Amino acid sequence: MTADIAASASSRIDHYPSRRSIPARFLERLDPVVYTRDVNDAPITPVQINQYEEQGFFVLEDIFSDAQVKCLQKEQQRLRMSEVNPGDEARIHEPGDNTLRSIFAVHAVSNVFARLASDPQLLTVARFLLEDEVYIHQSRLNYKPGFRGRDFYWHSDFETWHVEDGMPRMRALSMSVALTENSFNNGPLMLLPGSHKRFVACSGNTPENHFRESLRKQEYGVPPDDLLMQLANDGGIVAVDAKPGSVVVFDCNAVHGSNGNITPFPRSNAFIVYNSISNRVGEPYCNRPPRPEYICTRRSISPLKKGEGVPASE
Amino acid sequence: MTADIAASASSRIDHYPSRRSIPARFLERLDPVVYTRDVNDAPITPVQINQYEEQGFFVLEDIFSDAQVKCLQKEQQRLRMSEVNPGDEARIHEPGDNTLRSIFAVHAVSNVFARLASDPQLLTVARFLLEDEVYIHQSRLNYKPGFRGRDFYWHSDFETWHVEDGMPRMRALSMSVALTENSFNNGPLMLLPGSHKRFVACSGNTPENHFRESLRKQEYGVPPDDLLMQLANDGGIVAVDAKPGSVVVFDCNAVHGSNGNITPFPRSNAFIVYNSISNRVGEPYCNRPPRPEYICTRRSISPLKKGEGVPASE
Repeated sequence: MTADIAASASSRIDHYPSRRSIPARFLERLDPVVYTRDVNDAPITPVQINQYEEQGFFVLEDIFSDAQVKCLQKEQQRLRMSEVNPGDEARIHEPGDNTLRSIFAVHAVSNVFARLASDPQLLTVARFLLEDEVYIHQSRLNYKPGFRGRDFYWHSDFETWHVEDGMPRMRALSMSVALTENSFNNGPLMLLPGSHKRFVACSGNTPENHFRESLRKQEYGVPPDDLLMQLANDGGIVAVDAKPGSVVVFDCNAVHGSNGNITPFPRSNAFIVYNSISNRVGEPYCNRPPRPEYICTRRSISPLKKGEGVPASE
Repeated sequence: MTADIAASASSRIDHYPSRRSIPARFLERLDPVVYTRDVNDAPITPVQINQYEEQGFFVLEDIFSDAQVKCLQKEQQRLRMSEVNPGDEARIHEPGDNTLRSIFAVHAVSNVFARLASDPQLLTVARFLLEDEVYIHQSRLNYKPGFRGRDFYWHSDFETWHVEDGMPRMRALSMSVALTENSFNNGPLMLLPGSHKRFVACSGNTPENHFRESLRKQEYGVPPDDLLMQLANDGGIVAVDAKPGSVVVFDCNAVHGSNGNITPFPRSNAFIVYNSISNRVGEPYCNRPPRPEYICTRRSISPLKKGEGVPASE
């Protein structure tokens, strides 16, 4: 461990040093994947638990009614089309043009997505896997438009949340709720099974205000070609085709990405990140100011209570 | 028909006017798809003939031995790595960087690919479907590198060959020979089944020396969003996963494209275009000079003779 690392923010130990101007490499994962030891009364099947543990993800299907799915789709459309403050930084556009790519903090601006995030089915699964109360570290809508939707390059979310947000340990997970048909053709989520068991410490460092560019096109905190090749050779690549309403649950350190989309059919997902309340974020590990609240909940962290669930329209 | 169209090169009738500064629209296909009426002794199955007629493509599998596939792969690698004249225009690079994207006229510079193009199995199928002697209108290697391989946007090859090369009618077909695993994840060929039955006349016109840009990233001669949506809604989208050595045979007017490739695994194909000898190219229909010989055979058109077939290495 270099002097630089040892001297990092507030003399905390950095268990997952990355972007420390040293070459990229694999580090050991020091944290459990499934925190719960007691799997009696598990809200998911043993197969799902095992897949999450070994591969880093699984899919929840058929947990929302058609009417609930329609409601989410309508709300997505409304948010996408809604008149907004032109300076609204929580709305991210594609690199090089003005097509909407993501809207952050949707649970904070939409009652429907707040109810999705606190849906008892989802919350029960998150609490079970993390064995703790949880809060929403981040939420967003990802729009991958048809015809000209850009890729999301390979990355571990945890790497960024750790370095730029100060999330100490791997005790968080994401749920990606399909809002349109995610087929093999329109740039579905691809995961590298087993990648969550190693931490890819990345080279380089973190530029000032990195988030302004990284949310459009990530260039720092991405694993290098040789390590990606090793992960893909070791565990393969799984693309998740999902019908609207299906939920992909994946570990915070699972390396994932998606290709672009030239099909006419947009690929849209709502993305909710649950972090363990014991794992709340501190100072970033990169000696940069914290990212804005719409990207990383910091000011108002409290255990998420079960809500009424997703409303049903029509 | 506008005066402009009627007055086009040499007062020939332009059966498929496109890029004539009028809005994009569908025109009727005036030519057969399967030219042969007599299907006795057909070199392909009735199912394949029907798929080609109705959907515009089919796949030939297991026609090359493992040793032949290895030979093609080695030759591809050799051509890719070979020292070349830096001004060699037949080698096309990705937009924005120097990664090799395509090498044109490989049948003219490589004995192995010349033998692929004149392989009796392929040639028999081409002659059967077009019911004529054929020649090679174009050949190329398409490399879609891993990690950062770019998409090929939707297009009908015939639209370009007609407008820019002066190919009069739809009596040509392409064979795409997989040289690496083409999976659903690494940007495989996607086709719009049934699209070959209509001609998409495109808007705009043809800029001077269009090929210099269009081979990197096509912007003219691409169908507009609404017509692509209609084609995709009418016939769906089929991505072709193909193991090395598999051959996708598709009609010259089948609309196709492919997504980018962030996986570590390159997607490479050899691409051979057979044109009917009765359908040889004339003056371009766009009042621009003909494209170079490496893109469009013009000087040395003669019926292709059956060769010895692809050599086997090892």
